[in-house]
Amino acid sequence: MIYLDHAAATPVSPNALRAMLPYFSEDFFNPSAPYLPAKRVREAYEAAKNDIAHAIGAKGTDLVITAGATESINLAFTAASYTSRSKILALVTEHAAVLEAAKNYPHELVKVDKNGLIDIDDFRKKLSNEVVLVSISLANNELGTIQPLAEISELLRAVRQERLRQGIATPLYLHSDASQALNLLDINVARLGVDLLTLNAAKCGGPKGVGALYLAHGITLHPLAVGGGQERGLRSGTENVPGVIGFATAVKETKAHLSGNRKKYQEMASALRQELAHTSIVAHKPEKVKPIFLGNPKHQLVSFVPVCFPGLDAERLIYKLEQEDIYLSTGAACAANKGSKSHVLAAIGLSDDEIAGSLRISLGATNNPAQIRQSASLIRAAVEQEYQRLAKRQ
Amino acid sequence: MIYLDHAAATPVSPNALRAMLPYFSEDFFNPSAPYLPAKRVREAYEAAKNDIAHAIGAKGTDLVITAGATESINLAFTAASYTSRSKILALVTEHAAVLEAAKNYPHELVKVDKNGLIDIDDFRKKLSNEVVLVSISLANNELGTIQPLAEISELLRAVRQERLRQGIATPLYLHSDASQALNLLDINVARLGVDLLTLNAAKCGGPKGVGALYLAHGITLHPLAVGGGQERGLRSGTENVPGVIGFATAVKETKAHLSGNRKKYQEMASALRQELAHTSIVAHKPEKVKPIFLGNPKHQLVSFVPVCFPGLDAERLIYKLEQEDIYLSTGAACAANKGSKSHVLAAIGLSDDEIAGSLRISLGATNNPAQIRQSASLIRAAVEQEYQRLAKRQ
Repeated sequence: MIYLDHAAATPVSPNALRAMLPYFSEDFFNPSAPYLPAKRVREAYEAAKNDIAHAIGAKGTDLVITAGATESINLAFTAASYTSRSKILALVTEHAAVLEAAKNYPHELVKVDKNGLIDIDDFRKKLSNEVVLVSISLANNELGTIQPLAEISELLRAVRQERLRQGIATPLYLHSDASQALNLLDINVARLGVDLLTLNAAKCGGPKGVGALYLAHGITLHPLAVGGGQERGLRSGTENVPGVIGFATAVKETKAHLSGNRKKYQEMASALRQELAHTSIVAHKPEKVKPIFLGNPKHQLVSFVPVCFPGLDAERLIYKLEQEDIYLSTGAACAANKGSKSHVLAAIGLSDDEIAGSLRISLGATNNPAQIRQSASLIRAAVEQEYQRLAKRQ
Repeated sequence: MIYLDHAAATPVSPNALRAMLPYFSEDFFNPSAPYLPAKRVREAYEAAKNDIAHAIGAKGTDLVITAGATESINLAFTAASYTSRSKILALVTEHAAVLEAAKNYPHELVKVDKNGLIDIDDFRKKLSNEVVLVSISLANNELGTIQPLAEISELLRAVRQERLRQGIATPLYLHSDASQALNLLDINVARLGVDLLTLNAAKCGGPKGVGALYLAHGITLHPLAVGGGQERGLRSGTENVPGVIGFATAVKETKAHLSGNRKKYQEMASALRQELAHTSIVAHKPEKVKPIFLGNPKHQLVSFVPVCFPGLDAERLIYKLEQEDIYLSTGAACAANKGSKSHVLAAIGLSDDEIAGSLRISLGATNNPAQIRQSASLIRAAVEQEYQRLAKRQ
C-alpha cells in the first residue's frame, strides 16, 4: 500500500498509541474523582496539555481541549458574538468548518491569488470596523498554501491601534486553523501573532476525535456545550484522557523530527514533481496540454503536491490507482465524499474542466523514497493511459 | 485495588480495546475518503452505529455520534429552540450537564420525593403549553434512582393529544439521559416512549470522549458545530472511528451479559448493604444514629449503594479508604472536584450534615464477591473508627 492522502488522515504513531493504552484500562479513572489514582490521571492529563501547548509556545492553561478541529473552529468563532453586527472575515479557500461556522455570523470572504495566497488588497478593503474576527488557515488543506500570518497579524495590530485612536472599542482577533501545519511548520503563537489557533490531533499522528483551541488571555468565548465545567467551563464533559495523551505524544514526536521530516518530504515531493512533469501527454484536444502543479512551492507545505491534468477525470485516476494499492484523493475528504467540486480550486481560478482533472497528493510519515519513485511512475503511467484513451475516442 | 466508583468511569473492556486497535493504525483512513480502504472504514463505522442503535431498539441512522453525554444533552436541548418562549422541564436531580444546558432556555425544575423519584403532581402542574422538551434521566447518577419513563411518556402522549384537540401546534418531546443505565437496564426507545435518548460510552466499558444521541424522526435540532456535514449535518468533524468501534463492542458485550451482570451486582450490593447495616455506631451525639441507605432499591440500579453516615465527614472516609486501595466517591465526579455539596441529596431532603456524611458506592465489571466482602468490612471498620474518634472528641 502507498498512502498519499496524509492531509485527510494520518495513522496514530506507534509511540502515541503505546502511550494511550494504559489510560483505557488500568488508568481509566475519571480525572475529576477525589481519590489518588484519579488525581494521578488528572496530573497526566494536565501534563499532556502542557506538552501540546509548549509545542506552539503556549501554556497548558491557554488550551481548551475539543473533539477536533471542527469543534475548535466553531468555539473560536463564538468570539464574534461581541455584538449582533460583529463581522467575521475568512479566506474564500478555508475548510468547510470555517466557511460553515462563518455563516452563523455576518461575514465576508477574502479573495486569494492564483497560488491560493491571501489577496492583501482585498483583505484591507474588507477590514471594516465591524470586523471582530479574522480566520485564515496557516496552511490550506487542499493546496498546502502557507499564508503570511505574521504579516497579517502586523496589519491587524495597526488596525487595532487605529481603532484605539478613534475610540472604537470593537476588538479584533486573529484565528488560524493550523490543522495541516502542526507536523510541518515550527509554530509559535507569539511569533505568528494569533489570538486563537486550532489544532487537530488526527492530522499529525494523534488519534481522531481530539483537537485543541489555543486562546490568548482576555478573549470571551461562549461554550458550545455546558455541564460539569471542565476546561474552565469552555468545554464540559469528562476529559478524553487517552486521546489527549496520544495527541501530546504525537506532537512531541512530530516536533522532535520536524526538520528531518521536512527534508525527507521535500526530497520525495521534488522527485514526484519531476517524474510527473515528464508525463508524456498525447493531447486529446488540438491544444498541447501539460500537468499543472497547483500553488507555489515557496509558500506551500513541503508534503503537498496538488496537480492538475487538464481534460482528465481525476476520479477515474483515483480508481485506477486504487487497483495498484495507491491511495490519493481529489480534495478534502468531507467534500470529496459529497461529489461537490472543490471551492478551493475554483477560487484560484481553475476552470471546471481543470478542477475535474486535479489530484491532491499529500505525503507523510507512512512514505519512503522507494514508494514515491514507484507511485510516481504508476501515477504517470495511469495519466498517460487516460490521455491515450481519450485521444483514441476523438 | 477495589474500585467502587463505576458511575464515574469504567475501564474500557479488553474486547472493546482489542476491537479499537486496528482503527488507530492500519485502518486509520478518513471514512469520507474516496478509495476502497477508506470505504471499508466507513462500512465498519456505520455497522458500529447500527450495533449501538440495535441495543436500544433503534436504527443506526437514528443516532448522532457525539463526544459524550454532555454534548448529546446540549444537542438534544436545541429542540427547545422551537420559539423563544419554548420551555424545558427537567428533574431537579439531573446531572449538571442537563441543569446547565437547561439554563440556556426558559425552564423549570420538577421536584422529586425522598427516594429521588419524580413528583408526578409537581410535574403535571408545571407541564404548561409552553413546554417543548422534558428531560428526565433514566437513572440518576448519584442515587441510581430509575424514573418511571414509560408512565411519564404516557402522560406526555395524553398532553400531546390535548394540545392537538385545542389546536396548539407546540411539539412536546421527551429526552432521557441514559448514561448510567445502558449497562444495567434493557433499554428500548419505543417501549420507553422517548423521542431523544443520550448514551455515553465511558460508563459501560467503552472509551471516554464518545457518546450518542438517539433522535426520533421529525425532530429539528440545531448543530452545536457545523462544517463538513458529517452525521447528517448534525455533528460535523471527522468521525472518531476507533471510539465508535469501541463503544459498539462494549454495548454488545454489556447487552449479552445484562441479566448475568444484574444478578451478580445485585448479590454483591445486597451483601454490602447487609454488612454496612450492621455497622456498630458509637453515637457522638446523644441521639442514636444508624446508616441511612439512600433511595429505594425497588426503583434503583442494582449496582448503586448510596449511603449516609450521619455526622461523619465522607471526604475523610474516602481518604481513609484510599489508604486501603478502596476507591469511592461522594457524588458526581465533576461536582466532587469542586467541593460543592450535592444538589441531588439536597433535593431528596437530606440536611447539610447528612449530605456531608454520604458516600456513593457504585459496583461494576471490575468487582467480584470476595472484593465486596473485603471492602464491606473495611468500609464498616473505617466508619466505626470515625464515629469512635468523634465520640472521644466530645
